[in-house]
Amino acid sequence: MSIKIALLGCGTVGTQVARLLKEQNDLLSARAGAELELIGISVSNLETQRDPVIDRALLTTDSRALIERADIVIELIGGIEPPRTLVRYALESGASVVTGNKALLAEHGPELYDLAKAANVDLYYEAAVAGAVPVVYAVRESLAGDSVKAIKGILNGTTNYILDEMTTKGLAFDEVLATAQELGYAEAEPSADVDGRDAAAKIAILASLAFHKRVSLADVDVEGIRSITSADIEAAAKNNFVIKLVATAAQTGGKIEVRVAPTLVPTAHPLASISGSFNAVVIEAESADRLMFYGRGAGGTPTASAVLSDVVAAAAKKVVGGRAPQEIVLGESEFVPACEAVSRYFVRLRVNDVVGVLAELSRAFADSGVSISAVRQDSDDESGRASLTITTHAATAADMAATIESVSKVSDVREIVRVLRVEDE
Amino acid sequence: MSIKIALLGCGTVGTQVARLLKEQNDLLSARAGAELELIGISVSNLETQRDPVIDRALLTTDSRALIERADIVIELIGGIEPPRTLVRYALESGASVVTGNKALLAEHGPELYDLAKAANVDLYYEAAVAGAVPVVYAVRESLAGDSVKAIKGILNGTTNYILDEMTTKGLAFDEVLATAQELGYAEAEPSADVDGRDAAAKIAILASLAFHKRVSLADVDVEGIRSITSADIEAAAKNNFVIKLVATAAQTGGKIEVRVAPTLVPTAHPLASISGSFNAVVIEAESADRLMFYGRGAGGTPTASAVLSDVVAAAAKKVVGGRAPQEIVLGESEFVPACEAVSRYFVRLRVNDVVGVLAELSRAFADSGVSISAVRQDSDDESGRASLTITTHAATAADMAATIESVSKVSDVREIVRVLRVEDE
Repeated sequence: MSIKIALLGCGTVGTQVARLLKEQNDLLSARAGAELELIGISVSNLETQRDPVIDRALLTTDSRALIERADIVIELIGGIEPPRTLVRYALESGASVVTGNKALLAEHGPELYDLAKAANVDLYYEAAVAGAVPVVYAVRESLAGDSVKAIKGILNGTTNYILDEMTTKGLAFDEVLATAQELGYAEAEPSADVDGRDAAAKIAILASLAFHKRVSLADVDVEGIRSITSADIEAAAKNNFVIKLVATAAQTGGKIEVRVAPTLVPTAHPLASISGSFNAVVIEAESADRLMFYGRGAGGTPTASAVLSDVVAAAAKKVVGGRAPQEIVLGESEFVPACEAVSRYFVRLRVNDVVGVLAELSRAFADSGVSISAVRQDSDDESGRASLTITTHAATAADMAATIESVSKVSDVREIVRVLRVEDE
Repeated sequence: MSIKIALLGCGTVGTQVARLLKEQNDLLSARAGAELELIGISVSNLETQRDPVIDRALLTTDSRALIERADIVIELIGGIEPPRTLVRYALESGASVVTGNKALLAEHGPELYDLAKAANVDLYYEAAVAGAVPVVYAVRESLAGDSVKAIKGILNGTTNYILDEMTTKGLAFDEVLATAQELGYAEAEPSADVDGRDAAAKIAILASLAFHKRVSLADVDVEGIRSITSADIEAAAKNNFVIKLVATAAQTGGKIEVRVAPTLVPTAHPLASISGSFNAVVIEAESADRLMFYGRGAGGTPTASAVLSDVVAAAAKKVVGGRAPQEIVLGESEFVPACEAVSRYFVRLRVNDVVGVLAELSRAFADSGVSISAVRQDSDDESGRASLTITTHAATAADMAATIESVSKVSDVREIVRVLRVEDE
C-alpha cells in the first residue's frame, strides 16, 4: 500500500518537504505504516530555477488534477487565494490536508473544519504556529486532559529579531528593519510581521483550540512594534524588563481575551530570554500548571519537520483508520470588552524637574484607581527636565485611559512618551 | 455511548485522576467523543482513609473483575508487580491501558507493546516521563516527521531539588536529603531517585521511542548524586557551571548511548536554569534543530493532566477507530561501548602549590590525547596546597581513564577529588 502525497507550492518550506520525503522516506514510511509517495508538486511557473533536490518530472501547474490523485495534500502556497479554493477542493475530493497557512486558518478555519468533518478527512496545521515547536499538538492533544487558562507566546521571529537587535545594539527600528530585509530575516513587505498580524493569526488559532470557541483574526486586539524606540527599550531595561512582542490568549469566567502587543517582560520571565528567530509558548493549565515549549519558529527545514509530522499522522490514519481530534466548539465566543481588559502598565513621561511633580502624578494615578508599583526618575542635567517611568499594578484599560487623561493635565508633565503593557512575573 | 474506565491505584495521582474525571467530565467527554465513566477504583485496602472526593462506592479489591468490565484501564499502582500482571491482563482482555509506570515500561515494555499490538488495543504512557511535560507525545508523534539525534533532560525532580538546595544554601547532600524527606520531596527509601534509576528508566523509554531501538533500564549507564559535595558545586560555579543530574540519549552512526550522570552544565545552557521540581527536556533533531519542553515533572495534579490526556486519546480511538502509534523497532540495538563514549570532563585536584605542577599535569593530559580547555588554580594560603580544576575538550572515556592514571602518578598531585562530565554549550 502506498499513500499518495501532493505538494502545493515549492518555496523554502516546500523544497525541504520534498527533500525530506525523499531522503527520509524509509523512516517516515515505517512510522506511517505505508510507503509515502510524493506524486507531484504544483507550482505557478515550471521554468523557475529550483534546488536540484527537486525532481522536475514531478512539477505541474495543474493543481486540481494533482489533488484528484492524492490521499494527502500539503498546502504550502501561503496567502488566502488560491489556497482557500484548493484546500476546499482537496477536502471535498476526500484527501486529508496538511497546511502551514496561519492566515487561511485564522480567517477561514471554521469553514475548512466543517468541510473536513463532512468529508470524513483530516485537517492538520502544526506548521501554521511556531514552526518546529509542536504547540498545536500540545494544545489539541497533549493537553486534552486539562483545561487551559492562558497561553503566552513569542510567535513571530522577525519582530523578535528586530527587538533583539534594537536592545543589544541600541539601534532604531527603521535601521534594524532595513538590515533585516537585506539579510532576508524580514520580508520586503514587512507589515504582516511588524504590525503583529502574523502573531495575531497564530494566537487566534491557539485560542480556538485551547478554549473550544471560535476565535478569528478579527477578534485579536493587535498592536505592532513600529512605535517602539531604543529609548523605550533602554527605559525598560533600567526597570529590569525587556520589550517583546507577546501574543496572549486567556479565558476567565468564560470570557476570552486575545491580544498581540509589545510588552515589558520581567528579565527573569521564561519569555525574556527567547532571542532571535526562536519562538516560545508558555501555557498555563489548570492541572499541568505552567508548561513551556521553545524552538525554531521559522525556516525551511524546521517548518518542514512540523509539516512531515502531520503527514505521518494523516497517513497513519489512512492506513489504520481513526480521525484527528475534531474542532470542538462549546458555545458562542464571548470576549472581554477592550476597556475591561486588565493589565499592568508602564508609563514613560518627560516632566519638569521640580519638587512636587511626583506627588501630583501619584494623585492622578490614585484618583483613577490605578495603583503604582514602581517609579524611577532620571534627571536630565541640562534641560531642567526629567525622565520618569511609572510601573503600575493591574488595572483595567478604562482606568488606565482615565489616568493618562488626568496625567496629561498635570502642569509639570511635558510629554507622555509611551504607555506599554507589562507582563506579570 | 459511554467509555468505561477502571482505575488501578488510588494514591496521590490516582486521587487527582478520579477528581478530575468527575469535575471535568463534560469537557473531557466532549473531547473524547463519548461519556467517560469511571466504573471502579481498585485498592489494596478498602478501609484506608481517603480524600473525600473519592466515591467509596467505586472502591474494590478485585482488580481482575474490574478490568474485565473496562474499555480503558489506568494503572497507577507503581512498581513491577502486581502492575505487570494486571496490565497484561487488561491488554489481553481488550482494554487499552494508560500507565504512568516508568519502571514497568523500562524493564518490560517490549512484552507489553507486543501484547497491545496482538490484542489491537493501545498502550499510553505520557505520565511515565516528566510528569505534565508532554515529551512522550513529542517524541512519538510531534517529531514523527523528523529524526532525533539526541535527547538531554532533567527528568528527576527530587535530585534536581537536592542539587538546587546544595547550590543555593551550600549544604551537604545528607543534610538536604533529610530535609527533603521531612518535607515529602524525597521518599523514605530515596535510592531510585538519588542513585539515578528513576531518571534512567525515563531516558530508556525516550531513547526507545526516538531511535526505534529497544533500550531497557539495564542498557543505561547510571551514576547518581550521592558523591556530589558542596565543594564540587562551588568549584563548578567558579568555572560558570551548575551541577545537574542529566539524562542523555544520543545516536550516532547507528550506535546508541544512554546515560544518567551528574554533569556540569554551562550556566547559559537552557537546562542550567531548571530549578526545583521542574523537569525539562532538550531534543536535538535533524530538521527541527533544538526544541525544549519544560514543566512540572511530578505531583498529583500535573501528572493527572498527562494521564487524562492519554485517557482522552485512548477513548477517542475506541469511538472513531484508529490506533496510537505503534512501537517501531528498526533493527537490533547497538550501543556505544562505555570506553568509547565521548564527553568533556571536569577534573578537580588538590596539588602542592609549587612551580611546575601545571606543566607536569598538562603533559599528563597531552600524553593521553586529552586536550585541556580551561584551568583554574586557587591557592590555599595555609596548607601550601592548591585547588586545581581542569576542564577538557571532548575525550573518550578510555583516554580520560588513562589521563587520570597518569595524573595520579604526578608527584605533586595530592588527591584527585572528583571527575565529572561536562555538557557542551
